[in-house]
Amino acid sequence: MPTEALQFARENQSRFLAELKDLLRIPSISTLPEHRGDVRQAAEVLAAELHRIGLEHVEVIETSGHPMVYADWLHAKGKATCLCYGHYDVQPPDPLEEWISPPFEPTERNGNIYARGAVDDKGQMYMHVKALESMLHVHQGKLPLNVRIILEGEEEVGGEGIAQFVREHPERLRADFALISDTEMFAPDLPTLCVGLRGMIYTEIEARGAATDLHSGMYGGAAPNPFFALCQVLSQLKDARGHILIPGVYDNVVPPSAAELKAWQSLPFSETEFQQKEVGSSALTGEEEYSVLERLWARPTLEIHGMPGGFVGDGAKTVIPAKALAKVSLRLVPDMEPQKIFELYKRYVESICPKGISLDVRLIHSGDAIVIGVNNPYVKAATAALHDVFKKDTVFIRSGGSIPIVGDFERSLKIPSVMMGFGLPDDNLHAPNEKFCIANFHRGIEALIRFFEKLGGEK
Amino acid sequence: MPTEALQFARENQSRFLAELKDLLRIPSISTLPEHRGDVRQAAEVLAAELHRIGLEHVEVIETSGHPMVYADWLHAKGKATCLCYGHYDVQPPDPLEEWISPPFEPTERNGNIYARGAVDDKGQMYMHVKALESMLHVHQGKLPLNVRIILEGEEEVGGEGIAQFVREHPERLRADFALISDTEMFAPDLPTLCVGLRGMIYTEIEARGAATDLHSGMYGGAAPNPFFALCQVLSQLKDARGHILIPGVYDNVVPPSAAELKAWQSLPFSETEFQQKEVGSSALTGEEEYSVLERLWARPTLEIHGMPGGFVGDGAKTVIPAKALAKVSLRLVPDMEPQKIFELYKRYVESICPKGISLDVRLIHSGDAIVIGVNNPYVKAATAALHDVFKKDTVFIRSGGSIPIVGDFERSLKIPSVMMGFGLPDDNLHAPNEKFCIANFHRGIEALIRFFEKLGGEK
Repeated sequence: MPTEALQFARENQSRFLAELKDLLRIPSISTLPEHRGDVRQAAEVLAAELHRIGLEHVEVIETSGHPMVYADWLHAKGKATCLCYGHYDVQPPDPLEEWISPPFEPTERNGNIYARGAVDDKGQMYMHVKALESMLHVHQGKLPLNVRIILEGEEEVGGEGIAQFVREHPERLRADFALISDTEMFAPDLPTLCVGLRGMIYTEIEARGAATDLHSGMYGGAAPNPFFALCQVLSQLKDARGHILIPGVYDNVVPPSAAELKAWQSLPFSETEFQQKEVGSSALTGEEEYSVLERLWARPTLEIHGMPGGFVGDGAKTVIPAKALAKVSLRLVPDMEPQKIFELYKRYVESICPKGISLDVRLIHSGDAIVIGVNNPYVKAATAALHDVFKKDTVFIRSGGSIPIVGDFERSLKIPSVMMGFGLPDDNLHAPNEKFCIANFHRGIEALIRFFEKLGGEK
Repeated sequence: MPTEALQFARENQSRFLAELKDLLRIPSISTLPEHRGDVRQAAEVLAAELHRIGLEHVEVIETSGHPMVYADWLHAKGKATCLCYGHYDVQPPDPLEEWISPPFEPTERNGNIYARGAVDDKGQMYMHVKALESMLHVHQGKLPLNVRIILEGEEEVGGEGIAQFVREHPERLRADFALISDTEMFAPDLPTLCVGLRGMIYTEIEARGAATDLHSGMYGGAAPNPFFALCQVLSQLKDARGHILIPGVYDNVVPPSAAELKAWQSLPFSETEFQQKEVGSSALTGEEEYSVLERLWARPTLEIHGMPGGFVGDGAKTVIPAKALAKVSLRLVPDMEPQKIFELYKRYVESICPKGISLDVRLIHSGDAIVIGVNNPYVKAATAALHDVFKKDTVFIRSGGSIPIVGDFERSLKIPSVMMGFGLPDDNLHAPNEKFCIANFHRGIEALIRFFEKLGGEK
């Protein structure tokens, strides 16, 4: 027999999905200044919704950047307090021409909803809201446990605002644990909790050569070329077998435990299938002495995201640009410290600066790597709730991605996080044609309802 | 006593400059498809002007790309025939934000006219038109020699249309020599003829890794990164001391003669001043075993012009792009053959293709390097004309740039070119704040009038 809240959620599936679509239509791209107003609009829409469903102390909290949305319900005496976290900002949609349907016109195809932010993280964040609504509705405005919810609008740009808030006002978010749905299931129908995340430093290297753009015929052969300089520098940061060449970078890397490694080996994962179906390249790269899951979850990496500058139009322009930029990030694993890694990186990059070039190495944002313990009542309730919905045992995985807030919660609030995500590995996060499986949206809401009910003492 | 034509040119200086400004207002950017109509408009304006000044057989000649403008006057029996060549297309103006005045709003400052195309080549091309107008006007529609004039709209994109026309219809351009004003004076007030040009191949390397853009957290460490691959490849094309590493690339390089080297050494040139005032970088780069002028004029080079793809906005996007592009050119010197060099380049690039990446190496356009003899009556008339105007002996230099049409004229028409240019080294060709010294515009017109008069037998 489904509980009343589950019953309500099932009866309201089409409305929940329609509301999510409305939210996905708002292009709340936090990294692009021209979308500042859209980000705020998304915050205001969510604040109104949290108020409507019956949460209290709803507030749009200003930060140095985009606002956060806060609400709570704290009347379940003697029960645990859950801090629900999500983000309503999204990545830029480019390259636009590769989207089958426009990124901000949510479109259903093959049981999925396609839109920027569908799974990362509007769709998953909204599951929290709809699970809370279902329980509040059927219990006359009451919840079986205490809940605070905080939604940020800067996750995709480093989350500085919420990080500062957590540091400066830990009492405003006091809770027993955090609940985050911003990760994925290891495979379709396989309930998954994420217990480890990579950290990161996101950097820019700006190379400057001549005082102004120069004609490559008139000056080529004597004037420094900042793109060539960047290629020289970047090719010295990592070797062809995936080893990062920054001196000292591996010093504090802690390998996963033998038990964790063994569990990973039993996951349903084929490196060949991953290469052919998910990545779609002729070969995988990286450190061959490690399995692919180890490379993704437990090894640092260094990636180039783009190299702005110079001539990027069609055709030919014979320019030696005065400057060029490289956007470079490193993913970190425990116990690499972001600030220390950035210093090693900056010092090394500057030490290999080519002749005639000046380099400016800048840190854009950073986040800690994290590993979470699984022996607490919240994880136990989560696995039980997931079993109710999926009828399967939960697998524990790590993610190669970064959710810096988990480290902030651990450090400032001294609480663990339950990372219960319902994305799928082929959901195209940060890429064209991002999607979210509609069935997972609804199963996720049900699992969250069961999770809250179990923590509140219901069977 | 100035000739009547010189007198006319002097009296009409302000009108000539106003007309040039009108021409500079047309954004005839040949490489950008959205400016196709502007390129055609420039052609039509020029055709009307050639008709107005009294040339015959004015025609806008269609090509596979942008049109050419042709006109002639062939009634000077027994006299030489000059083929005047120029181009009315321009480079793109980006980066726009570095222009002090807008690129297509010609603005006078400090005795210069600032605009895209001011010196390359609208301003210099228009000197031919105004010199011819001056002579036609004062001699009742007659010229002292035979003239054909051909103006192209594709010089900045490789000039395929005119190259094909020259190959297929050499009789339409039959002449004794060509006159080209698309080069510069070695120093202010120093009359200069250019007698050598570098050739080039302009290429694109496209690198593809994964089938779609990937999240660098989820896939970083196992998925191939096309930007990193390009950096690996590009850093292996040239070493830190400027030596191109493509096997065989130097095999056919012919060094300049001892006499030419000696003449270059006596030119008023300071490497330090060049570095500090023209290039404005902390050091010069390239092959230290050669002088700077040798590096620029007589040595091949390899340059990267831009690396489109990936994330180029402000802020952070954690993407591993599915593809990335590099725009790369090589400047060539005698006797490097463009097609053969491209094949060596392509083979080498493909041979160092990183794992998991596919590379597509494309030739965008190419042109021959060239060295021109100085023992002919046209060069002698040119130096005499320049002496009349500048009261100084002409210096013979080479240019590091490429004017492929000079090779086409040599091969298909069997005629030498006189490259009499009036640009200056700091004119910012292909860069923001391109300019042309207004005094040189007028002195150039006078030198051209004297040149034509001398070839026609006047004193």
